[in-house]
Amino acid sequence: MSSPDAAPVELQPPGTHFLAEIRTQPDALRALLEHSGDYARVAAIARDRGATTVRMVGHGSSDNAASYGVYAFGLLPRWTALRDSITLTVYYRTPLDMSGSTVIALSQSGRTPDVIEYVTRARQAGALTIALTNDAASDLAAEAEAVLPLAAGREQAVAATKTYLNQIAALGLFAAHAAGEGRAFAEGVHSTAGLLEAMIPVLEPQVRRLALPFASVGRMFVIGRGTEFATAREIALKLLETCRIAAEPLTATDLAHGPVAALDPLFPVWTIASHDDSLPAVVEAAGRVREAGATLVATGDAADAIAGADYVLRTPKPPSPLLSPLLSVVPGQLFAWAAARAKGLDPDRPEGLAKITFAR
Amino acid sequence: MSSPDAAPVELQPPGTHFLAEIRTQPDALRALLEHSGDYARVAAIARDRGATTVRMVGHGSSDNAASYGVYAFGLLPRWTALRDSITLTVYYRTPLDMSGSTVIALSQSGRTPDVIEYVTRARQAGALTIALTNDAASDLAAEAEAVLPLAAGREQAVAATKTYLNQIAALGLFAAHAAGEGRAFAEGVHSTAGLLEAMIPVLEPQVRRLALPFASVGRMFVIGRGTEFATAREIALKLLETCRIAAEPLTATDLAHGPVAALDPLFPVWTIASHDDSLPAVVEAAGRVREAGATLVATGDAADAIAGADYVLRTPKPPSPLLSPLLSVVPGQLFAWAAARAKGLDPDRPEGLAKITFAR
Repeated sequence: MSSPDAAPVELQPPGTHFLAEIRTQPDALRALLEHSGDYARVAAIARDRGATTVRMVGHGSSDNAASYGVYAFGLLPRWTALRDSITLTVYYRTPLDMSGSTVIALSQSGRTPDVIEYVTRARQAGALTIALTNDAASDLAAEAEAVLPLAAGREQAVAATKTYLNQIAALGLFAAHAAGEGRAFAEGVHSTAGLLEAMIPVLEPQVRRLALPFASVGRMFVIGRGTEFATAREIALKLLETCRIAAEPLTATDLAHGPVAALDPLFPVWTIASHDDSLPAVVEAAGRVREAGATLVATGDAADAIAGADYVLRTPKPPSPLLSPLLSVVPGQLFAWAAARAKGLDPDRPEGLAKITFAR
Repeated sequence: MSSPDAAPVELQPPGTHFLAEIRTQPDALRALLEHSGDYARVAAIARDRGATTVRMVGHGSSDNAASYGVYAFGLLPRWTALRDSITLTVYYRTPLDMSGSTVIALSQSGRTPDVIEYVTRARQAGALTIALTNDAASDLAAEAEAVLPLAAGREQAVAATKTYLNQIAALGLFAAHAAGEGRAFAEGVHSTAGLLEAMIPVLEPQVRRLALPFASVGRMFVIGRGTEFATAREIALKLLETCRIAAEPLTATDLAHGPVAALDPLFPVWTIASHDDSLPAVVEAAGRVREAGATLVATGDAADAIAGADYVLRTPKPPSPLLSPLLSVVPGQLFAWAAARAKGLDPDRPEGLAKITFAR
């Protein structure tokens, strides 16, 4: 595997960076773990201050990672974490009391304007503010009280892969340190990086075969529940931005509350089934999808629990259910790459997108 | 306008209930206001207990209404409100400390299984629990410490309309009473009901004309920000469940972080533009949509601020920006009715859906 920095972009086929960055995710996770001490130190500050309401802000993949954070903070230190409204603070200028809050601002580039402005205001409102970014010299890092390095290495494809994976691992690591379980979690991430490394070459030919029938698909649902709802959101976003598929993430239960009515055999559904206590809800949702006659893709370490799936992409079982999202998103990333190529699109540079988004 | 109870379902054309219920929304809002005293009483209990973290739970339209609640509680009593994870409490059984929390469980029927179970556990965890339901004799009402009547009257169409509108008005009313501004808010809702009554007959022929070109549309984005993100979610859900359109709600800023790459002239975008401080972000997003060549529908009381829209559906300006969502969702409801009819579908009984959802 060549380094993404080895040759000029122009000489490489479309999607070269995207695929290379998917493949380097095990290394990116290991690089994050080298900073475990920083995470322990900042988590101790949050704990000592009693700043146990966690407000996460970010857009796109960063906001998807925050969906995982809700579970990491709930399950480990039992703190209440939320994806906070940027609009309430930045546009409506609502003076909320944020003493007792830890703000985690997620931005790969550290340059997202309304995230930076949110941090400025949250700090004034009494929150402990933390920048979780790939660029420790960014404006976001300067604005926040503490900086946690994402340590994913330079990401060249516009569509995020390794920065997303490191964001969820980073949120888990921070939550684990807050609960006094940082060392065990870091060891779990390390083992999971090894599983990921072995899994990717097995999945690549499988997703290539799946991408062909999906080359003409224009819409799709992606279903996950609990910790895997973040995965559903992230896979749907990859399909939207790299393959122009109108993919919508849904929790297993939300599907039954309306969207199931839109299904038919030409409307495929991607399900993420992992071994955790929400698995029965996902299995039940998959049953509804099958009843509607929709084409069903089953993925995750409990993919075999989904009866009657048309396509199955298995992932290995990690040391704990909280680590499953580090593996279950990868079939979706690889599928986005393969489907984009099957459609003649370039996942490194989707039309209308830039690597750093200055949109307000 | 005939009462929805006047004739047996079988003798009426498809969508009769759905349309009748859209039209009766002004009356449903007025019926809610008769219970303003109940809202004042329960809001005082929450305030006296210091239960100022608001955890809202619900599925489908109820969860969409909760998105509005985030802003109502933030802007009025300046409380932090979140759409809480049901999975964390019900499936993962995480023992969160909920003293200091008010739980608002939203369920039209009061019979959604995991919402009821969430309330049981939240009450054990120390939360003040409130059922906001159309059925004061339901299991949910019995399980919660306090019951707030939705007072929307019987809803017969499977797809929610007046219960959604009353849910957002109810959340606003509760938040306003918590802030000591209940009377002014109730007067605002009353005026808005009058505006709604005048608006519906004007919009009906407009949406009928719009529905024809959209009869062959299979996918769509619906864009709103701040208080109108709830509206975007609710309109997208109506289109999914009644018209089989894969409609995805996005905040104005999220659009730029990926989804814009999927747009083309055959991928329409519905924008909700209201006069509030987030309007510039919506105008900027609409500009990106136009650059991508997508067909643009502009709605809301600031619809004219969206330059170059292909279709415009104006709504009147209510007494305060927090009331706009009571009006801006209605063009979407009426459009869902007209598009469903243009496609030969029955919005009263979408395939695969039941009025009460027992899915877990």
